[in-house]
Amino acid sequence: MTRTVPPGWDHAPSATCGSVGEHALIHWISTTVGAPASKDVLIGIGDDAAVVVPRRNHVDVLTTDVQVDGVHFTRTLSSPADVGHRALHTNLSDIAAMGAEPRVALLSLGLPADLEAVWVAELVQGLVTSARAAHVHLIGGNISRSPVLFIDVTVSGAVKPRHVLRRGGARPGDELYVSGEVGAAAAGLAWLQHDAGHDDGRLGQPALPTEIEAAILRYRRPEARVALGMQIGRNKAASACMDTSDGLADALRQLAAASGVGVRVETATVPVSPAVALVAERLGADPQALTWSGGEDYELLFAVPRRARRRFLHASGRKGLPLVTRIGLCTKEPALVLVDGAGTETVLPGGFEHFGGTA
Amino acid sequence: MTRTVPPGWDHAPSATCGSVGEHALIHWISTTVGAPASKDVLIGIGDDAAVVVPRRNHVDVLTTDVQVDGVHFTRTLSSPADVGHRALHTNLSDIAAMGAEPRVALLSLGLPADLEAVWVAELVQGLVTSARAAHVHLIGGNISRSPVLFIDVTVSGAVKPRHVLRRGGARPGDELYVSGEVGAAAAGLAWLQHDAGHDDGRLGQPALPTEIEAAILRYRRPEARVALGMQIGRNKAASACMDTSDGLADALRQLAAASGVGVRVETATVPVSPAVALVAERLGADPQALTWSGGEDYELLFAVPRRARRRFLHASGRKGLPLVTRIGLCTKEPALVLVDGAGTETVLPGGFEHFGGTA
Repeated sequence: MTRTVPPGWDHAPSATCGSVGEHALIHWISTTVGAPASKDVLIGIGDDAAVVVPRRNHVDVLTTDVQVDGVHFTRTLSSPADVGHRALHTNLSDIAAMGAEPRVALLSLGLPADLEAVWVAELVQGLVTSARAAHVHLIGGNISRSPVLFIDVTVSGAVKPRHVLRRGGARPGDELYVSGEVGAAAAGLAWLQHDAGHDDGRLGQPALPTEIEAAILRYRRPEARVALGMQIGRNKAASACMDTSDGLADALRQLAAASGVGVRVETATVPVSPAVALVAERLGADPQALTWSGGEDYELLFAVPRRARRRFLHASGRKGLPLVTRIGLCTKEPALVLVDGAGTETVLPGGFEHFGGTA
Repeated sequence: MTRTVPPGWDHAPSATCGSVGEHALIHWISTTVGAPASKDVLIGIGDDAAVVVPRRNHVDVLTTDVQVDGVHFTRTLSSPADVGHRALHTNLSDIAAMGAEPRVALLSLGLPADLEAVWVAELVQGLVTSARAAHVHLIGGNISRSPVLFIDVTVSGAVKPRHVLRRGGARPGDELYVSGEVGAAAAGLAWLQHDAGHDDGRLGQPALPTEIEAAILRYRRPEARVALGMQIGRNKAASACMDTSDGLADALRQLAAASGVGVRVETATVPVSPAVALVAERLGADPQALTWSGGEDYELLFAVPRRARRRFLHASGRKGLPLVTRIGLCTKEPALVLVDGAGTETVLPGGFEHFGGTA
């Protein structure tokens, strides 16, 4: 993990959040963020609330998502900048799943008084860097004392009303597509957890298979599929969309439930990350669990009407966008069915549930 | 404290957040909130993100604020509905301080797995009831497992650009006004904390002085000054505004700093809650600390140019609005000065800082 003291940070390495204090932290954040790059941000950090000009002929798209220490991340497995990046991209993924363009973010930090303050500075630096790359402006938030570290981010985006992608629009016969690869983040996390338990601390040393390296990066630095979601929304090329933040099984289940359809997925076509087999083989992990229930890939699942297939493939095939793969169909029957290469049918496994069980 | 099982809640009283699960909780919240009452909410709870039509000719005003168990509230001193109410109103107060009208809210809950689930249901019921009263729609959010209970709320509101109230607009010579009374919430909290330490558990029994009852209510159920902020914004009757969520001293300090002015406050004119003297007398608390550094009154502090004084008093004098009281002046000298009845000058005490110190 790379860690670097952010530019302009002039507190002692041993300084804690408690010793630096709320006002000094906010002042540093405000300086780091700088003046809003967009003239649509009328008031950014530093007033009672932020003020943003809505985009003409667009609607506002709002979402919030939190990262809690020990639940969504572990400080030994992710750098502070990784955590800041992820706290942003979990939200960007929700915005992407609506076909919208993210615009502004609010950051609510809960900080233990004894947490090293530079950790927070690195987190904010990471978040701000990732936000800039996504053309998102950090416009406000708050800092609070908390017995447990958490990072709650709210993102507001914009989309034309007719380009909104919903969960509930899929119809029987629509084809199901997923972007990128499935199971990579879960495989990367499984590897890191195993490493942390068995290694001498030199995480990721020596030379890892490139598939594992890629999976670890996918876990630490997920990339919300913003450009893809916007392309598909603009081209009205999907009847429904949802992100796979809680796993592919969960996304299929929720999209089906919201749309009142069933799904029939051909397992052989699912673009499983090659890291899944490697991690399963080397660590004895369950490849099915990694594939179906492991979340945090932040890919997009689409339902595409047959008449929109060419439009969908054209729009999703644009340069710089992730590959999309057809994995099955929506059905009139409400069942959630997996079909393997031999034609054997099984029921879709559960997705991630936030209190440890499976849905 | 009143506690009632919310309508439609059909889980066992002993059920925990872990046993009920994230999906069932979200389902119950979604049912409790119901269909959006406003046609401006195109998509509410249940999709990847919420979609809201911006108000025509208005700008969006965004804020986020969190309540952490043991930091901002104690479960023995506030009912779950009180906590829900407060989690909303801390945000409404920020919106009010911008002169804006709150419209929609997002709710991010961090829940310990062993927390009784009905506590969460009561909190949400309280928040939703208070939101309805304020014409605010709960449009989304998320639920996460967390070792510590927290309630993070984001509110978006609307205001015409020319009606925005900022912190930084005060000029030397502008008069300072504060709404309502100062120190009530801090006095109420001090009383509750004393009671909890010394009582037999029959909180607030027997008959409390009405001033203390009112102060306890102000602590448990703060009322953001939304209508007042909007009136003053609409009438362009103030040059600056800020809420007193972190105490009057903090608000004066921040408004002065943002505006590049000093302040001169006549202490005899400050509308101190009568509960402050009572609590000071009976519990030996410091009345100065309650008045200046005790936050959570959620009143509004305004700077008013002399030429706008009549407009300000007319607008703030409308039926149903809290009283406003002139407490001092903005000065060219950057000092923050208190003047007592005898003309003796002292320096403004510190406000609340989130890591225990004073600013």
